[in-house]
Amino acid sequence: MSAEKLAEGVLTGKRRDLARLITLIEDEDPVAPEVLSLLYSKTGRSWIIGVTGPPGSGKSTIVTRITAEYRKRNQSVGIICVDPSSPFSGGALLGDRIRMQEHSLDKEVFVRSMGTRGHLGGLSRATSDAVRAVDAFGRDVIIVETVGAGQSEVEIIEIAHTVIVTDVPGSGDDIQAIKAGIMEIADIFVVNKSDLAGADRKVTEINMMLDTDSNMGQWRPPVILTNGRTGEGIVDLVDKIDEHFTYLGKSGQLEQKGLRRSREELEQLMEYKLTRELLNSLRGSPEYEDAIKKIASRKEDPYSVAEQMITKFLVDCRE
Amino acid sequence: MSAEKLAEGVLTGKRRDLARLITLIEDEDPVAPEVLSLLYSKTGRSWIIGVTGPPGSGKSTIVTRITAEYRKRNQSVGIICVDPSSPFSGGALLGDRIRMQEHSLDKEVFVRSMGTRGHLGGLSRATSDAVRAVDAFGRDVIIVETVGAGQSEVEIIEIAHTVIVTDVPGSGDDIQAIKAGIMEIADIFVVNKSDLAGADRKVTEINMMLDTDSNMGQWRPPVILTNGRTGEGIVDLVDKIDEHFTYLGKSGQLEQKGLRRSREELEQLMEYKLTRELLNSLRGSPEYEDAIKKIASRKEDPYSVAEQMITKFLVDCRE
Repeated sequence: MSAEKLAEGVLTGKRRDLARLITLIEDEDPVAPEVLSLLYSKTGRSWIIGVTGPPGSGKSTIVTRITAEYRKRNQSVGIICVDPSSPFSGGALLGDRIRMQEHSLDKEVFVRSMGTRGHLGGLSRATSDAVRAVDAFGRDVIIVETVGAGQSEVEIIEIAHTVIVTDVPGSGDDIQAIKAGIMEIADIFVVNKSDLAGADRKVTEINMMLDTDSNMGQWRPPVILTNGRTGEGIVDLVDKIDEHFTYLGKSGQLEQKGLRRSREELEQLMEYKLTRELLNSLRGSPEYEDAIKKIASRKEDPYSVAEQMITKFLVDCRE
Repeated sequence: MSAEKLAEGVLTGKRRDLARLITLIEDEDPVAPEVLSLLYSKTGRSWIIGVTGPPGSGKSTIVTRITAEYRKRNQSVGIICVDPSSPFSGGALLGDRIRMQEHSLDKEVFVRSMGTRGHLGGLSRATSDAVRAVDAFGRDVIIVETVGAGQSEVEIIEIAHTVIVTDVPGSGDDIQAIKAGIMEIADIFVVNKSDLAGADRKVTEINMMLDTDSNMGQWRPPVILTNGRTGEGIVDLVDKIDEHFTYLGKSGQLEQKGLRRSREELEQLMEYKLTRELLNSLRGSPEYEDAIKKIASRKEDPYSVAEQMITKFLVDCRE
């Protein structure tokens, strides 16, 4: 199938073509960037919502609930579930994807899971491209969910316009460390499982943390208590997302976010392509394998070898 | 301070020089690779143990306990705590670092926390370099602990000879997904908090999972029940680490791991250096900023621009 045909299929709303394109993206097929290049001018219309938070904080339930609320409001939805720790991708493979199947018969909801097929840098780039594809496909809202809240997930979630960070009452030991990393990226906090003991305390804790944050801009992230099981707080949550949308547009931050995202995407793409060219030129060559053996036996050091190899690559590339 | 002096300080066991070198590594100071290059031939003597697992599974307690056990066995210890979600680094800043201070007066224990100062790729590289520095400093055992178990943490932990994956009874929703990603890298499983309900069931679950793993090599990861509070299971755990050490040596896998690590390190270094050269050549130039604006306004697409910029970089570099 040609890049042109596939691009046309995506633009005319063919789900199968969209799924096919995302598979090409994951496989790093050279056709993928061609298609994305053709689609690019039709993108930038979706509102991208990121959902992240520690394991067990009910992200998938929240995503399912938000989706139902958007459908009630007549908005079409795309969902990309990213799991940097999983090698799985494609359909609803993971256990917690099952709940999302309640939307699987709704043609206005497109769900896709993505896992780590190769290197992490690849996943971040692939997610960005997949969101782009769903954007061109014409979804009003795209929800990107990632498991966990490490730096990798933060990078993935940064493509979103509105970032929701989920938490639950009485979390574990390292939870403070997690907060430190994701506080800056949260536009809305959700304390899920409001029926658990300590829910109100958790809300207070987060609010206190926010009140002592001197770096905060004009948008003060709201903290919303939800219950994924009963749906409590979900209407409020979606209203807040809309408010954030309006805020970003009015304050000029939407434009700034767009510029930042374009910069990040361009740099990510360049890093990725350049690294691939370098490694393709080296891997498998006898000198390269020999250099690795010398490093392992401490006859050479990797810092000097890296310097030499790059110099050689940059000289060779003109020939 | 010159690279030679600093290298000498590290080799002669000056803690302050080791700390200084790791700071240079984190700051991406150009002196750091020079020092590491000088130290490299003196490395490869430490046994590197990685500890990872979901938040709240008691990793820090386990690390503290293992350290005490190694000290009893007259081994010197270095500890690197990596938190990809935290911007903090340096001393014992994080809450869960406090427990490790019981070792802080022991000169044979060196503890250092590392956080994300810049890009994630930077952290993975910095950790690898810091471990190298502690290795040259002459520690018998180096423990690398990372928070969480996303792909980023997996990359960081892969520099270890022996990887310990911790878990607790009755974990959350996404725990299955986490397993899928880290099963392959675990050499030893630890079920911590043995006093909690469901501890035995958790051990059985992991054992069952291991029994159905057809890709397993000759080393069948043991599953050890521990209690960080009482110290139960720790002697057994350290014995298993020693067993794994013996196994890797006898089976020839130690050599293979060394080659793999050398390859990964070299590629990581090259990727990092090359990317930095590219971005340094672009950032701030009017054409580059203009291209980003055009991408944001959908006049150009990032895929074509990335292609053009790389071609230009590779041509320019010969001049």
